[in-house]
Amino acid sequence: VRTTALIAGSVGKDGYRHYMEKELHEHPVVIGQTLQRLIDPATRRVVLPDLPFDLASVPRAVVTACGSAFYAGMIGRYWLEGIARLPVDIDVASEMRYRDPPLTPGGLGLLISQSGETADTLAALRGMRARQQHIVSVLNVEQSTIARESDVVLGTVAGPEISVASTKAFTAQLSVLACLAIAAGRLRGTVSAEREQEMVAALLDLPSRASEVFDQAPAIREMAAVVANARDVLYLGRGSSFPVALEGALKLKEVSYIHAEAYAAGEMKHGPISLIDQTVPIVATVPSGPLFEKTVSNLQEARARGGRLLVFTDTKGAERLRGLAEIVVAIPTVDEFTSPVLQTIPVQMLAYEVALLKGTDVDQPRNLAKSVTVE
Amino acid sequence: VRTTALIAGSVGKDGYRHYMEKELHEHPVVIGQTLQRLIDPATRRVVLPDLPFDLASVPRAVVTACGSAFYAGMIGRYWLEGIARLPVDIDVASEMRYRDPPLTPGGLGLLISQSGETADTLAALRGMRARQQHIVSVLNVEQSTIARESDVVLGTVAGPEISVASTKAFTAQLSVLACLAIAAGRLRGTVSAEREQEMVAALLDLPSRASEVFDQAPAIREMAAVVANARDVLYLGRGSSFPVALEGALKLKEVSYIHAEAYAAGEMKHGPISLIDQTVPIVATVPSGPLFEKTVSNLQEARARGGRLLVFTDTKGAERLRGLAEIVVAIPTVDEFTSPVLQTIPVQMLAYEVALLKGTDVDQPRNLAKSVTVE
Repeated sequence: VRTTALIAGSVGKDGYRHYMEKELHEHPVVIGQTLQRLIDPATRRVVLPDLPFDLASVPRAVVTACGSAFYAGMIGRYWLEGIARLPVDIDVASEMRYRDPPLTPGGLGLLISQSGETADTLAALRGMRARQQHIVSVLNVEQSTIARESDVVLGTVAGPEISVASTKAFTAQLSVLACLAIAAGRLRGTVSAEREQEMVAALLDLPSRASEVFDQAPAIREMAAVVANARDVLYLGRGSSFPVALEGALKLKEVSYIHAEAYAAGEMKHGPISLIDQTVPIVATVPSGPLFEKTVSNLQEARARGGRLLVFTDTKGAERLRGLAEIVVAIPTVDEFTSPVLQTIPVQMLAYEVALLKGTDVDQPRNLAKSVTVE
Repeated sequence: VRTTALIAGSVGKDGYRHYMEKELHEHPVVIGQTLQRLIDPATRRVVLPDLPFDLASVPRAVVTACGSAFYAGMIGRYWLEGIARLPVDIDVASEMRYRDPPLTPGGLGLLISQSGETADTLAALRGMRARQQHIVSVLNVEQSTIARESDVVLGTVAGPEISVASTKAFTAQLSVLACLAIAAGRLRGTVSAEREQEMVAALLDLPSRASEVFDQAPAIREMAAVVANARDVLYLGRGSSFPVALEGALKLKEVSYIHAEAYAAGEMKHGPISLIDQTVPIVATVPSGPLFEKTVSNLQEARARGGRLLVFTDTKGAERLRGLAEIVVAIPTVDEFTSPVLQTIPVQMLAYEVALLKGTDVDQPRNLAKSVTVE
């Protein structure tokens, strides 16, 4: 396990039962610390470090990473495309490095890694470099191989992450990616000064909203009791909630050994709906927003086939879902663009609570290493 | 169920137990018929219908589809990028339509659908049209809504597909996509006349090689006996074999209700490896070729964690795998670029054999519709 000296965080468990629990509770502070580096609170503007290229004129971005960091990258794609209208290609690093996609020279190569040592991500970086991409990496360990080979490092200020299953690094990565998208949007003329201030305010609001998520622990434990009895679980989400579903399913796999699989909610009808019965609960992330009704409609189909619905939403979406779902966890309603950051927290908490019920070795799950430095 | 009058195929079961079994056996003829439309056997060149745009100068392609057709599109991406160096964006249609990615005007919008009526794919088509893409669709039903809204239809000559779980339409879609990639490569100067003739020869060789796959039925049945006893299965593959793994997992889900999930083999270490034990068999597609040893190395990791390995390979890869895997299915070795077409057949056969052992309603699995004409 590599650690980082970025913050003076203790490396003990501070009274928590597991590092994973401790690190889950660090989400609010980690988001705050990471944003502090990239936001000027006086002007409510994003301030990136100097870049040795012009973000306004890069033709495209290519994003790669592994595991949870890849899902953070998928949310980053929604933001870069939606906020800055910068087109993004994305693939897991183990595929990207061998697929060798045709890249436009002068593009932005964006790598995401907690450790900065992930072997496939490093190999993908070198492939991008060979194809004349500007290399920006989002890393928690700033003294690392990927850092040394990058043009610019945007650090996540997550502090040491000891639990093998990553938690707080994910929201820190999202905090960086959100700032990058806002800065790119300003430079590319898609984000007005006024909208930037609104978005920055929404980001700065996240630490306190994130603290309120822990109030939902009782409902999350109720959900955990259902999930812990299942052998298989489907996670569903649409748009920027789809990567949140992927992250939730990965975390549940990692720490509870339950076979959780995430699907884009609209794809469920094209196959996995055949799995649905009483024994396969459906965990859905459904924040209010433009895709809310579309996802609700997919959940109604699942319910009609006997599926048990366990739903994460926000206070605004809760009422509509209470009649439909068996358990509803409603966290604070926030600006739609920041909602995947907040929605990630209860989804990770669920995995932790299920692992407790299953009695697994939460911080050191079987077969897994913290940092994958081989192919 | 919609049918097509493209070939004079009977709509009875012709002595097979199920439509799915019959349609699996139609792979060789369907590949041959589809290629016949697009290849001039005298010159060994691909001959596309006239296109109302210049394939040599399209800046990029954007590919979308749902379910199995999406996995065919993923293989198409490998070919368009690898053979023609045409950059490709891809996403499932239910995500693409709402994500609204920035598209370069004058690009190629490529849609794939068996029925030509898939609601999300049609909506994605209209989004691409609004973003000034040239619309080419790969369809089995040429009298369909998607056909009417396309600039060009490249027909798959798969005949009526009655089984809800699609089989032969997939290899027909791949046959079309391979021809499209070769033609694009010739026009873009990445495929020489000589290489085109070699690739065309490899394609024309597929129907006979596909017939030989059925000789492996006994080994596939042996594999099915292991899989039918599992509740969860992991499918693995790399590169163009990853979509084959996705197709295998989807097919198993659909007809056997076993929870199968496919992973890019290199991503296994980043989470799903924690699921692996004696009760979760691993089904891998590992044809010989440049990614062979990388995938074997991932399988060794899985084996070291107690995983039971069930492997699809070719005669060239078989020897290396026999010491490692519990069951090896070796189909004919073919040109590396056509191997995903051939590897799909035994993977689909496995799903069928497992469904027989489970006693499910093979042709009409629960909860599924043949053509998804709603969101």
